Amino acid sequence: MKNKPLILVTNDDGITAPGIRTLIEVMSEIGTVVVVAPDSPQSGMGHAITVNNTLYLDKVSKEDAEITEYNCSGTPVDCVKLAVNEILKQKPDLCVSGINHGSNSSINVIYSGTMSAAVEAGIEGIPAIGFSLADYNWNADFEPTKPFIKKIALEVLNKKIPEGTILNVNFPKLKFEEIKGIKICRQAKAYWMEKFDKRKSPFGKDYYWLTGEFINQDKGQDTDEYALANGYVSVVPVQFDMTAHHAIQTLNTWDL
Amino acid sequence: MKNKPLILVTNDDGITAPGIRTLIEVMSEIGTVVVVAPDSPQSGMGHAITVNNTLYLDKVSKEDAEITEYNCSGTPVDCVKLAVNEILKQKPDLCVSGINHGSNSSINVIYSGTMSAAVEAGIEGIPAIGFSLADYNWNADFEPTKPFIKKIALEVLNKKIPEGTILNVNFPKLKFEEIKGIKICRQAKAYWMEKFDKRKSPFGKDYYWLTGEFINQDKGQDTDEYALANGYVSVVPVQFDMTAHHAIQTLNTWDL
Repeated sequence: MKNKPLILVTNDDGITAPGIRTLIEVMSEIGTVVVVAPDSPQSGMGHAITVNNTLYLDKVSKEDAEITEYNCSGTPVDCVKLAVNEILKQKPDLCVSGINHGSNSSINVIYSGTMSAAVEAGIEGIPAIGFSLADYNWNADFEPTKPFIKKIALEVLNKKIPEGTILNVNFPKLKFEEIKGIKICRQAKAYWMEKFDKRKSPFGKDYYWLTGEFINQDKGQDTDEYALANGYVSVVPVQFDMTAHHAIQTLNTWDL
Repeated sequence: MKNKPLILVTNDDGITAPGIRTLIEVMSEIGTVVVVAPDSPQSGMGHAITVNNTLYLDKVSKEDAEITEYNCSGTPVDCVKLAVNEILKQKPDLCVSGINHGSNSSINVIYSGTMSAAVEAGIEGIPAIGFSLADYNWNADFEPTKPFIKKIALEVLNKKIPEGTILNVNFPKLKFEEIKGIKICRQAKAYWMEKFDKRKSPFGKDYYWLTGEFINQDKGQDTDEYALANGYVSVVPVQFDMTAHHAIQTLNTWDL
């Protein structure tokens, strides 16, 4: 490890969100920080990339600023791609995404722009971590997360992150002294029970808002949901090989 | 199996794309078809959902049409959620997505709106298949894919698809008689080497187009890329539990 690791910071709530400001603060204690984040909220963007449209990138930090910051018109995944290919002169030692306003535990990893940015960094061979706090409030208290974020980031920099994986870290909405520790977990088997809120526009046309209720049917004590509900920070290793290797044998018995 | 299975059809190229028209044609030989597809191209949308905006849904088929069709202002995943929660009175027996204009093999499964629609159906407990043809042309020849699509869809309806998985089916750009058969595969370890095309707008502002080159470094003969390159239809079982279960043990040795 060089003296000062190069750390790429991004998120999906946009560059002005308090969550990313906290993450930038912690990362600047560890390394040289470059921020490339969306210029507007990109929640729920999943692994979307901009293929049918143009992308804008603006340097928003002053020339003499310690931390270089860019905002980008695209998705969180676009931010990582632009950072790696157009901004950074070397591959970063670490990419961190977040801190998301709202949890990304369980199945939410798949819808989350925050997590998809980290996954994209992982695909590009960069050690990566997504951080989320189980509090959707814009003015959520991110202070308790700081020592944990520093500890986890340093451990990722010091140890080799298992190949083909990145980390999904979620914080319970608790005071620092209430947090019991960190637990390595698996993604809980849970899902969203959607409920569309149907309304009529001023012009008489029906439209919908996607809302829903989160249903956790997984009683396992090794899940991220269990850890969060019991006062722990959850850490789930996430992979981007989506092959269900265990299903290949069964499919080979099919008549295809 | 009831006499006529209920089949939900969607895609990411939009409801007017020739690919989805072919898929609708094949599915209507098998069951009762309901189409809910985006009203505009949604390529590269990954698992994006519309959370900060409204959604529109319009019935575009005539009242006496055999096949009911809706278009939707949202992403492919939105289409599946709306279909299941607002349109269909019962859970469909099968959800098919595509046929995508362009392949979704290897790592592309993660960026693809077509595949994410199928994954969303899988999350909701619906047997699901995404179909893609390795030809980006709007006027690609989808004829050779038809018998394979029918065979695979019937097999999925007849056999129980392994729990927690859906199928990613890719077709090589070949004539029917040139296709050697179907191979069950794993996702190749490949990635995109991005290259941003930097231009100047008429107003003097820099902007970028995301372009890139697909790099396959995986020499395995059990991959989807190998199958496609050798004249086979590739079928990869895809899971949506993104936990890297094999990495949990290693992480438990970390000092966290």
